[in-house]
Amino acid sequence: MATVAGHLSLDDIASADADRDPNFETPILRLLSDSKTKGYDTVCIPLTNEKWRVRWKKMCLSPEDEAEKDESAERISEAWRSNPVFLREEINVTRLDEAENTIVMLSDWLELDSPDEWVRCDAETALMQELAYASYLNVSVAILPPPRNRTHVPSYARAIHACLDKIPFMHFSVRVPVYDPAVFQLVSPTPRPASPSPSIGASSVASGFSASSSKSTGFPHTTEEEFNTTWEMWDVIRTICESNPRLSLTLDLTPPLPLTAGVLDKWFAEPTKQIFLPASTFIANAKSYPVLPKGTQSFIREIMKLQPTVILSGTNTGQHIRGGERAYSQYIKHLEKTSPAVQAMKKLGTVENFSIGYHDYLQAPLQPLADNLQSTTYQTFEMDPVKYANYEEATFRALLEWPKTDDRILLCVAGAGRGPLVARALKAISRANQKAFIHVVEKNPNAFVTLQERQKTEWGDQVQLHFGDMRTLGLPEKVDILITELLGSFGDNELSPECLDGAVRFLKPHGISIPSSYTAHIAPLSSTKLFNEVRGHEDLKKSETPYVVMFNAVNILSGEGGDGNTGPRIQECWEFAHPVKGVVLNERGLPVTNSHNSRFADLNFHIPHAGVLHGLAGYFEAVLYKNIGLSIHPQRKDYISKDSISWFPIYFPLRDPLYLPGNSELHVSVWRLTDQQRVWYEWYAEAFLPVMMPVMDWAVDRAPASLSAISTPQLITPSPTIDALDVPPVVNKTEIPRAPNESSRTETRLVKVGQTALHNPGGRSSWIKL
Amino acid sequence: MATVAGHLSLDDIASADADRDPNFETPILRLLSDSKTKGYDTVCIPLTNEKWRVRWKKMCLSPEDEAEKDESAERISEAWRSNPVFLREEINVTRLDEAENTIVMLSDWLELDSPDEWVRCDAETALMQELAYASYLNVSVAILPPPRNRTHVPSYARAIHACLDKIPFMHFSVRVPVYDPAVFQLVSPTPRPASPSPSIGASSVASGFSASSSKSTGFPHTTEEEFNTTWEMWDVIRTICESNPRLSLTLDLTPPLPLTAGVLDKWFAEPTKQIFLPASTFIANAKSYPVLPKGTQSFIREIMKLQPTVILSGTNTGQHIRGGERAYSQYIKHLEKTSPAVQAMKKLGTVENFSIGYHDYLQAPLQPLADNLQSTTYQTFEMDPVKYANYEEATFRALLEWPKTDDRILLCVAGAGRGPLVARALKAISRANQKAFIHVVEKNPNAFVTLQERQKTEWGDQVQLHFGDMRTLGLPEKVDILITELLGSFGDNELSPECLDGAVRFLKPHGISIPSSYTAHIAPLSSTKLFNEVRGHEDLKKSETPYVVMFNAVNILSGEGGDGNTGPRIQECWEFAHPVKGVVLNERGLPVTNSHNSRFADLNFHIPHAGVLHGLAGYFEAVLYKNIGLSIHPQRKDYISKDSISWFPIYFPLRDPLYLPGNSELHVSVWRLTDQQRVWYEWYAEAFLPVMMPVMDWAVDRAPASLSAISTPQLITPSPTIDALDVPPVVNKTEIPRAPNESSRTETRLVKVGQTALHNPGGRSSWIKL
Repeated sequence: MATVAGHLSLDDIASADADRDPNFETPILRLLSDSKTKGYDTVCIPLTNEKWRVRWKKMCLSPEDEAEKDESAERISEAWRSNPVFLREEINVTRLDEAENTIVMLSDWLELDSPDEWVRCDAETALMQELAYASYLNVSVAILPPPRNRTHVPSYARAIHACLDKIPFMHFSVRVPVYDPAVFQLVSPTPRPASPSPSIGASSVASGFSASSSKSTGFPHTTEEEFNTTWEMWDVIRTICESNPRLSLTLDLTPPLPLTAGVLDKWFAEPTKQIFLPASTFIANAKSYPVLPKGTQSFIREIMKLQPTVILSGTNTGQHIRGGERAYSQYIKHLEKTSPAVQAMKKLGTVENFSIGYHDYLQAPLQPLADNLQSTTYQTFEMDPVKYANYEEATFRALLEWPKTDDRILLCVAGAGRGPLVARALKAISRANQKAFIHVVEKNPNAFVTLQERQKTEWGDQVQLHFGDMRTLGLPEKVDILITELLGSFGDNELSPECLDGAVRFLKPHGISIPSSYTAHIAPLSSTKLFNEVRGHEDLKKSETPYVVMFNAVNILSGEGGDGNTGPRIQECWEFAHPVKGVVLNERGLPVTNSHNSRFADLNFHIPHAGVLHGLAGYFEAVLYKNIGLSIHPQRKDYISKDSISWFPIYFPLRDPLYLPGNSELHVSVWRLTDQQRVWYEWYAEAFLPVMMPVMDWAVDRAPASLSAISTPQLITPSPTIDALDVPPVVNKTEIPRAPNESSRTETRLVKVGQTALHNPGGRSSWIKL
Repeated sequence: MATVAGHLSLDDIASADADRDPNFETPILRLLSDSKTKGYDTVCIPLTNEKWRVRWKKMCLSPEDEAEKDESAERISEAWRSNPVFLREEINVTRLDEAENTIVMLSDWLELDSPDEWVRCDAETALMQELAYASYLNVSVAILPPPRNRTHVPSYARAIHACLDKIPFMHFSVRVPVYDPAVFQLVSPTPRPASPSPSIGASSVASGFSASSSKSTGFPHTTEEEFNTTWEMWDVIRTICESNPRLSLTLDLTPPLPLTAGVLDKWFAEPTKQIFLPASTFIANAKSYPVLPKGTQSFIREIMKLQPTVILSGTNTGQHIRGGERAYSQYIKHLEKTSPAVQAMKKLGTVENFSIGYHDYLQAPLQPLADNLQSTTYQTFEMDPVKYANYEEATFRALLEWPKTDDRILLCVAGAGRGPLVARALKAISRANQKAFIHVVEKNPNAFVTLQERQKTEWGDQVQLHFGDMRTLGLPEKVDILITELLGSFGDNELSPECLDGAVRFLKPHGISIPSSYTAHIAPLSSTKLFNEVRGHEDLKKSETPYVVMFNAVNILSGEGGDGNTGPRIQECWEFAHPVKGVVLNERGLPVTNSHNSRFADLNFHIPHAGVLHGLAGYFEAVLYKNIGLSIHPQRKDYISKDSISWFPIYFPLRDPLYLPGNSELHVSVWRLTDQQRVWYEWYAEAFLPVMMPVMDWAVDRAPASLSAISTPQLITPSPTIDALDVPPVVNKTEIPRAPNESSRTETRLVKVGQTALHNPGGRSSWIKL
């Protein structure tokens, strides 16, 4: 659940101080009590007041007239630098009970990224002083002053890193505007009202898009880069702070948001723990109640999946005619309730509901071939409401469409586990009203007991049980239809291809396999959360292991490509089809080598917006029979097997994040490799940027002295072993013939900008036992 | 010393086989013996012959008519895949004594980067087979087939990684053309003779540059990118193979090289262990002897510092009229002898000679303040022929220019060590014929014994010794000239600023300090060798520690910038000047805080050619007195303090390499930070690419379903808490107003393409004790 916090202004605090209530020991305690009665879950308090600002400026900024600096003043500053301390009246909060469960906002005027090096130093000293004081008061979350200056963000971030090192426990939240509204002031010179009056909202109904553009000045004209500026600052901060789990961000939604939110998706992959939302961002609806512009509405609904704290400010300043102060927080809670992500989580039978508690939690993929599963594991998977229905339907259709015959149709369920597919196959046989018989194969001795019990109590002589590994076992007769459920999150990652190489021996020449084929799919993923989870493992090799994961705080970085060079958002790696043709078999009917099950994919993704690649999301899609399938492909699962809960996606992490510029291309290589004992995946990626370049001759650059000194004295006298005939020693740049119009021609080239390591080489960190 | 190897062709082997010599047990042993008498240090032998190629092609390539694949043929291929073995006649080398000390060249026709996935798989199997066989013969260096296909280089590299994992000890060398000559065939359609005849070389003398361009077809027209293609392939291979120390490269110099070599410098930072040089690359000089074109000559001379093995091929094919087969190897040895780098190393008294054995060797910087140095350390530094001469000269000039006075001039040598500066100061006093007296301060109790001895035996009552730390000690009188030698490789890294904060207390108000100032300088550096050295340390923190290093196999990545946005190749970080003004002092005359000694530099480098950033090279330059100085700045040291040997550069390594595209900008932040106990450096870098972009409106991108579904059913009925008035739900892209001529306008923007981590935050890995 999201939390709603009320922001206390310095004015609120001053007036509570002026108008003391004897029922409360301090004005802050009274304000805390008030905010609860107003429906806020918590409050956000500024730690310091104007008095501190005045003293700090006097100590740390050069006087405006730039006169000789007063030595006694400088002595005071140095005394503060050597031992910083507050005066009581500079601070709003002094008691533990005032700070309990509140969010504290540090002095937002501190310029940790000032262009002036010495101002930066003193701002860092002040920040450390404020944090140390907040820590003394046991504050759990402190909101830091926002970064303002891209050039000096590395210095801002270095200071935060230093404070994180020195202050334990406390969470630091960097306040970042969702984009830089200053950019838009340049685009549109029309002055924008500081806090829009309700009448502007009301009068703008009729004119369509321009209605909202009176609030969202200029954003249809903005570029990727302009939307990217503040995220890029945050990215530098997070990177320099080594993605410290105590570092989060307060997203400032003061600027209105665009309706199409692709450019904003990056914030879902960040630790967006707080949302700062001033009353001035709200507009009035038909009844003059405060509501949010559409773009902001959508964004808030979406980000509710991260369960943020929404900090409302200025709600008591009467900016909207109706609804009063409570209307704002009620509206936020309404948005949460109507958030599709929250609704899906609350609805029984959805994968979102099933996966509560597993969000962004890393699990090692099952190895049902090497390990014998527990009965509880089978039970969980048997709960899937969709998967077995689809298997039954596929079997039913296959039986219906089977060529008319007087013989009974022979089926084989290979890898039957506790028998759910056997039960479904029997139902399908009954529905299709066919004569049929099922051979059942299972290698797990424990599950085989359950199968024997079910045969005795449920199935009778319509089935025959066979105990053994489908890769080596013999059956008394060849079958028409082979049914298996060997698929993992990435399709082939539980060795379905290798097992079926054995099981197809049971099939008649024109027999069919259910599934008939399956494909593996990937997409480039960003997620600070997952990056931290993977890194949390002490063993470095764990960063080269695929995991099964229910994604939540993630962002798929790719867009729909399709310009010829790049493919769609989520791309297919490879396919396995069964029965497979053309494999050379040995005398036992098994493949001589497993090399035909090796696979390779080389995929090009379009990356529309800058982001940090943390890994690859993997999905599968299977054709069971004709148009009956199973899919966890995010764009197709709802059409193929909606609400199937058996598979979370797979995640191939990267050891080190890879920065991807906006409009770049990501070339991903994925290999499925195999030797006699094991199967494993390796993965690698390179980033390229299409760059429009003037077509230029190769510029003669400044060679180092040792190389440009080509006509050394020795070379003057001809000698058999020395002098070459290609004499003219130094060619002037101007003498080199040049192509005509070199500066006017341009062409676009792909320039490489980065790469990952090769992950899991030789299966050194992760493999699947054959 | 470089090694020269003769390449044996298949023809050489065949004719030795046809014409057996009873003095040798095998034809190969005869060829080995021959090559020694021809002046080669070793030979390079192709491992396999045409018979193997024919068999492999038959097994692994689809027949050209694409008919049904013969199952029995496929059975043979699968048998080979499952258990690869050679036939005797497919192999040129079979005995240990044939392979001893030779370089073996694997089948160069193996396409590990074929566009066909299955050909790649079979090529990998064959490569592994050849390597395993070479390993059986105890071959120490195997030259791998060259990569040919940029798209599938990741697959090539992954295969090499797999082989490195499986084959122990052996060194693998990837054969890489210095650039891709195919690129130039596109540029200039003039056919180039396969092996130029001597007459072409001879006739091209007169026409100047075009003479060499008949050989070096088109290279003046080539771009950075074209010169970059093969290095980029090598870079992918090295990266994917995790810079394995057993992986090196054989640079193929078949294509002629440009005269200006900046674009080639990147090869000096790579493990370029072999040079492949065919006789056809040689041209004829005036006397028809084989010599190399100027560009290639220069490059070979320069790369001699890496002591490569030069593999000469085709030297017995009579391509040049004079000199015979020996002329080629003699010429190479001549180039080595005349290599400036080799000459400097051989010349006594140069830093290159002094540093033999220390090339690319990482040393922890001294901490002479915290540690008391050994007498041997003092002795080494006192050997510097230049440093003390410059100190004497600076002192002499200062004394000469001192205002006329009847009093004796008072000097203080603070941190005197064993007294070299005292001796020089006494010489300067004597040369200047001045009345003067020297106070000598030293805190090392052991060195203080030496000082006492020298006073007694050499200096007498012209000096007075004081034992103690210059930061706290008191002197009986104030002095006119303060002389110190506290400089480290990075200037301030041995805490000269902090020590002088104390020592300036000894100075009269208008006294002077020798040195009067010093500056720190950095340049971005690439070096696979240093990267591997740093990584070799087990403690990960060692990758965040600065080292003192004599650079050899390195390349400075920056070029001379100066376009307004970027600075010169090597850039100044900061300066310290003494005595310092305006610091607030306490009652003991010492600064209240050390914050005035913190420093920050934010530098922009132009990176002309693509490369991998492994760290920052650091240098210092000091002004002792007016124009007398000390410098290890690579471009200025020879003008200021040539042949001073006291300082190797400093090296700030990066934990992870950063890929830099050609024509990029590198923004480097370096901090000198301090608290009450320590001083330390932190460093960080970001890479940007100037990209010319069409000025475009913000493209409305394909929003995910959950976000584009803005008009959900709930929103249709007005309600106080729901409906905003900015209704028009979806704006068509075409309705958004657009700037005129959006596609014709372009502008250049800096696009971020990558960043490093913040190194050594809070001095966690490395600091200097105050």
